[in-house]
Amino acid sequence: MKKTDLLVIGGSAGGLLSALAARSAYGDIDITVVRKTEKVMVPCGIPYIFGTLFDTNKNVIPDAMLTGKGIKLIIEEVLSVDKEAQKATLASGQVIEYKKLILSTGSKPVVPTFIKGYEMENIYPIQKNQEYLTALHEKVEKAERIAVVGGGFIGVEIAEQIKLSGKEVVLVEVAKKCLWTAFDEEFSSEVEDLMTDMGIVLRTGRKVTEFVGDGKVEALLLDNGEKIPADLVILGMGARPNTDLAESMGIELNKRKAIVVDEYMRTSDKNTFAVGDCAEKKCFFTRNSVPILLASTAAAEAKIAGSNAFHLRLIKSNKGTISAFATKIEGRSFGAAGLTERQAKAEGFEIMTGKFSTMDKHPGSLPGSQKINIKLVFSKCSGVIMGGQISGGDSVGEMVNVLSLAIQKAATSTELNAFQVATHPLLTASPVAYPINAAAMDMCSKKCEHLNEDIEI
Amino acid sequence: MKKTDLLVIGGSAGGLLSALAARSAYGDIDITVVRKTEKVMVPCGIPYIFGTLFDTNKNVIPDAMLTGKGIKLIIEEVLSVDKEAQKATLASGQVIEYKKLILSTGSKPVVPTFIKGYEMENIYPIQKNQEYLTALHEKVEKAERIAVVGGGFIGVEIAEQIKLSGKEVVLVEVAKKCLWTAFDEEFSSEVEDLMTDMGIVLRTGRKVTEFVGDGKVEALLLDNGEKIPADLVILGMGARPNTDLAESMGIELNKRKAIVVDEYMRTSDKNTFAVGDCAEKKCFFTRNSVPILLASTAAAEAKIAGSNAFHLRLIKSNKGTISAFATKIEGRSFGAAGLTERQAKAEGFEIMTGKFSTMDKHPGSLPGSQKINIKLVFSKCSGVIMGGQISGGDSVGEMVNVLSLAIQKAATSTELNAFQVATHPLLTASPVAYPINAAAMDMCSKKCEHLNEDIEI
Repeated sequence: MKKTDLLVIGGSAGGLLSALAARSAYGDIDITVVRKTEKVMVPCGIPYIFGTLFDTNKNVIPDAMLTGKGIKLIIEEVLSVDKEAQKATLASGQVIEYKKLILSTGSKPVVPTFIKGYEMENIYPIQKNQEYLTALHEKVEKAERIAVVGGGFIGVEIAEQIKLSGKEVVLVEVAKKCLWTAFDEEFSSEVEDLMTDMGIVLRTGRKVTEFVGDGKVEALLLDNGEKIPADLVILGMGARPNTDLAESMGIELNKRKAIVVDEYMRTSDKNTFAVGDCAEKKCFFTRNSVPILLASTAAAEAKIAGSNAFHLRLIKSNKGTISAFATKIEGRSFGAAGLTERQAKAEGFEIMTGKFSTMDKHPGSLPGSQKINIKLVFSKCSGVIMGGQISGGDSVGEMVNVLSLAIQKAATSTELNAFQVATHPLLTASPVAYPINAAAMDMCSKKCEHLNEDIEI
Repeated sequence: MKKTDLLVIGGSAGGLLSALAARSAYGDIDITVVRKTEKVMVPCGIPYIFGTLFDTNKNVIPDAMLTGKGIKLIIEEVLSVDKEAQKATLASGQVIEYKKLILSTGSKPVVPTFIKGYEMENIYPIQKNQEYLTALHEKVEKAERIAVVGGGFIGVEIAEQIKLSGKEVVLVEVAKKCLWTAFDEEFSSEVEDLMTDMGIVLRTGRKVTEFVGDGKVEALLLDNGEKIPADLVILGMGARPNTDLAESMGIELNKRKAIVVDEYMRTSDKNTFAVGDCAEKKCFFTRNSVPILLASTAAAEAKIAGSNAFHLRLIKSNKGTISAFATKIEGRSFGAAGLTERQAKAEGFEIMTGKFSTMDKHPGSLPGSQKINIKLVFSKCSGVIMGGQISGGDSVGEMVNVLSLAIQKAATSTELNAFQVATHPLLTASPVAYPINAAAMDMCSKKCEHLNEDIEI
């Protein structure tokens, strides 16, 4: 029987980084990662297989990240775990005895069994499996009319990438706008305008009521009666925690079947941790359970679980999960962190916003300069930042992380108004109009208004 | 006699933003900006006149930023200020009475009067004056062999821009390496390699002892006896506070002739504030006086002065000045914030570093992907971040501002190891290898080492 100090089940972002964090924290212990697939897809890179990479082999997380650190890798399925005996049984019959276990079993795409015809040929949910994606890519190449169901990040990015090759693409989304959970209306509109301009047909605020066809899908019926012809359908309808193994182990799950964890990613079993899509997420602002499934969230959790597997060493200072997103559509980049204005209001927060627009290089006459739009959401009374959204050029991808950190460090509008930044003509907005500073000043200005009613200067 | 509530002297970043911040904070008061030049150059854009913009008119800060907010603009020199009477006299004889005054009179380039021949023709310090720069640009176009004296940001960027047009360029720097005040040796070396590869000849660790010529410069003599032929010399030898007016007003200056200010940019005169290059800077880490002259620093100070001109409203939460820089050389970007390892050690801080390298897109096979190198400097015992340096693609320009904020919010290695970030294949590194997280983990790993000596897991 094989023995290991730390057993990690799952090889995507959460599993990989749990193992690396444990190696980093505990030095020369025995670490074993067991995963099902021969190769691991870069999860967020999957949409780019269809238009930019053109080959699933270009979208692989290199195993050298693990093996280079002396972490053992077993490609096999784990059939069962006896948590009392601290033993895992693999498909081959091999048994591994462990001291600590980290579950990073990920998620499964939502399959719309509630829509008639969902089981027909040429309807594909997005799975993170290389063979599956290679086959799907070939299907996409041959298809002419493609429907994407779901206007979240995966749906939007896949629609954009497929459209690059000139196919007919229709995207159907049940919410009012695309990217509705990440952005306020004005930013979603900017995304939709870009998609429409490139020829993607949008049907938002619409449900699919039926997939029509004779064995193979031929069309989608919408709830307004519209019939959309399609020879291939891609489903980006979200994902659910993959927790069959955890459930069979007798580990506590929440209502959404996500594994219940404490601040340190510890499950109801004292030797088992869970990270990533399979683990419950608590909102940073309210501590309510939220269904946020992101590789970057998994990465942050993996750091906590791996570092704390044997002793609680790495104090978790940022309680709860912020959603921090970025994407790029038709040359424009979009980023969001924390709550949108709509979400904050729905939660009952009294908020104020600060807004600003400027160019992302200075002078704006520099080649490649793009307009930046930024909106920050602050608690009205306490002035603490709760969220932010940005559109602009590529620099949005990192600028949103200034906001991610600001939220996690509870920065106020006053602090962000005058925090010192690096600027450069070719790389950022002007120092007199740095977007985060300027949007915070807009908020401060609104807060000062009533102070100026009886001003004596 | 004209009366105004707030008089701002100086129209570059500090003056402009002081006026805008006062408008933002105090609403409908009377604000007047007096400046000398017809147009204001984007200060950090000046090097790009010589290779990318090719026209000083493309490098102008638009006056609409002021006039659009109802701020009065007078293009004239201020001859004197009577601070007791609160009156300023302009060159035309016009007198302006003010309630509060903000001095943003900037800096003057160092002219090396200590080097023989410094007064010859074709030796140009960099001044922020449009006519001067337009004339210099024409001279550069006609020159064949150009020497740049000074390997700070201005010298390096101008050398790079001029080299783009194929001229012979030699850069002479007295310090061991270029950008020596901003970066540790490994990053300076990366910059120098790029410059050398594009054909710029570097002479570092060398002083100019004489400018040789017959009225017009023909060559430079170095302290090792080397003679460098040059028909044009550009001086990027730093700048000194321009405080003649403040001195004539009887306002307190420090040893370096910078205006002494308190946390709220108030000078020794209760109605006078000073911001930007003319005002003294205190180091964020030690509160010692430091000669940091940056438009972005001026911008942060202007926010404080403008918002607090009449009442102390905007609490200054980040005491002292951090140096936050970014630049781009030959397609590579470089950013730094806070102290370098060398500077921190020289100040007596006990430090530890965290390092990491990865690609700035994920998968790294995506087109345009560049390698990122990052180094973070932490206090060894307290774990607080004191500085960071990054090289990579364009995203470095904003990634360094995550570090700027982290320093100003005293984030620790533990916090930065697992802080949540947004990632996207086309815009950032992978979530499993986000550079700031990963470099912080490297630091945490080192801190854990002695904990693992007698580990029981």
